[in-house]
Amino acid sequence: MSIDVSTAPLDASAASLVVVGSVAYDTIETPLGAREDCLGGSGTFFSLAASSFTKASVVAVVGEDFKPEDRAILEAAGVVLDGLEQAAGKTFRWGGKYHEDMNGRDTLFTDLNVFEAFEPKLSATQKNAGFVFLGNIQPKLQAHVLEQVRSPRFVAADTMNLWISIAKSDLVDVLRRVDCLFVNDEEARQLTGKRSVLLAARDIQAMGPETVIIKRGEHGAVLFNGGDVFYVPAFPLEKVVDPTGAGDTFAGGFVGYLHATGDLSAENMRKAMVVGSLMASFCVEGYGVDRLKSVDRLAIAARYKAFAELTRFGALAL
Amino acid sequence: MSIDVSTAPLDASAASLVVVGSVAYDTIETPLGAREDCLGGSGTFFSLAASSFTKASVVAVVGEDFKPEDRAILEAAGVVLDGLEQAAGKTFRWGGKYHEDMNGRDTLFTDLNVFEAFEPKLSATQKNAGFVFLGNIQPKLQAHVLEQVRSPRFVAADTMNLWISIAKSDLVDVLRRVDCLFVNDEEARQLTGKRSVLLAARDIQAMGPETVIIKRGEHGAVLFNGGDVFYVPAFPLEKVVDPTGAGDTFAGGFVGYLHATGDLSAENMRKAMVVGSLMASFCVEGYGVDRLKSVDRLAIAARYKAFAELTRFGALAL
Repeated sequence: MSIDVSTAPLDASAASLVVVGSVAYDTIETPLGAREDCLGGSGTFFSLAASSFTKASVVAVVGEDFKPEDRAILEAAGVVLDGLEQAAGKTFRWGGKYHEDMNGRDTLFTDLNVFEAFEPKLSATQKNAGFVFLGNIQPKLQAHVLEQVRSPRFVAADTMNLWISIAKSDLVDVLRRVDCLFVNDEEARQLTGKRSVLLAARDIQAMGPETVIIKRGEHGAVLFNGGDVFYVPAFPLEKVVDPTGAGDTFAGGFVGYLHATGDLSAENMRKAMVVGSLMASFCVEGYGVDRLKSVDRLAIAARYKAFAELTRFGALAL
Repeated sequence: MSIDVSTAPLDASAASLVVVGSVAYDTIETPLGAREDCLGGSGTFFSLAASSFTKASVVAVVGEDFKPEDRAILEAAGVVLDGLEQAAGKTFRWGGKYHEDMNGRDTLFTDLNVFEAFEPKLSATQKNAGFVFLGNIQPKLQAHVLEQVRSPRFVAADTMNLWISIAKSDLVDVLRRVDCLFVNDEEARQLTGKRSVLLAARDIQAMGPETVIIKRGEHGAVLFNGGDVFYVPAFPLEKVVDPTGAGDTFAGGFVGYLHATGDLSAENMRKAMVVGSLMASFCVEGYGVDRLKSVDRLAIAARYKAFAELTRFGALAL
């Protein structure tokens, strides 16, 4: 049984970017410290990042234990919560421990709780969404969401090694209807059998998505957009506090910026990559959403300029 | 006993960039194939890469089995070989096997042979060198080279985890006299105990080198030059044939370009980083020096432009 807690009336523009993903409580151990029950999940990170640029509407489920103060964080950022169901039971919980170098991590536990029976149902307004982000859920559920959206202009999706292993044909079905896929190097190789990331990206493009974004953690990300290839580094930080959610935050910055500008040109995709990377750099500066929730336009503009400074170089003099 | 095979008279300009390193035969296994006794070694890769821009003079030792056709490769590229000793015994041999993803590798054997008793002796002209590259040899030998150079303008050095483990205080002594150090992420962390590459680079700068270059293999490289920070990606290739020598080739492109232009400004260091990365991208396209030896200015200029295209982006529109 699920209880719909939506109250505010929807308007068309508010629903025009829809994200389907998890809203969860994360327990995080890093070499620097630990935190219990941080607000997290792909839907959370994506929508908070996107909210710096546009309105994002979340489709997700939480349990009866979901704290009002966490709902307030999302509301304060302007996230549209009409699609956030509250169901009997506990909120999805994940625990992870990061390795010494903060790159790798081990999952300590995954308690799906209310997420186990999650069947995303879009409202009438959400069905008219122009931009859709399918967070890292089962490919069959991603397909179920897409079936509900009438004529999206831009569909982006995330996935993971687990689905490539156990549900590859479902994933391949979804990819036919996806414009932009986020994966890491390893997933790109696993999905295609190609060693070269360049060849792997081309193979994925041939499966459907014209745009493939390879996420590389502390090494940044690569955009393959049609024939265009673009590299963005990760922002160099003195201290990474918690890498959790960086990938979804990247996606939220990227898709949120594209939605805000309404511009899917190659030039604008490059800018969106920088926005994604800079939003991820804010994300990892605090536990959970601690830093992300307080990012403002001024900080974003300053870091965007810092990225330009990190990568510019002049013509060759020979 | 070592036999000096130098014949041609030296001129001052020819000696003004000196590289001390190995000239070796490498046996390489990759997931794509294998090759025996490829011409390799840090001195070889560095000097070949530098030779696209300037004259480089090698200080190294080879055995009686060193093939005339391999000497001819270096001569054809314009490498100055007066400092290449030929000693009784066999040439240094190294064998390695690359992992499936072509990033990691295992050393199969290291036969130092004539390199074991190598004591670099600089000629009168080499002692006047303006630019020096100290390849990855024992820190004590690196120091021994530096003691022979009168007043170098720019000293660059490479090192490795082994020397950080067993000869750290010798290495720290050398670093006081080094302007530019090449290391990878792991070595930077090992040398400083700092997790953040940014903080590690600052600590290394405090040990002496104003310029620290962090090599990241397929993820490119980062320049820390005084307060300036610059990222360059690795060039995306359809096929990496053999990663051996990519780091020394990067260094050869970087230092060779700086020497050719005589310009150590921050702006020119950024350009030199791109040159280093593009030379490394040629290097890995063939076994040993197969591709590197045939790179011309036209190919370099074209790839430099491709790097600019890979990383450019416009101003934020918000």
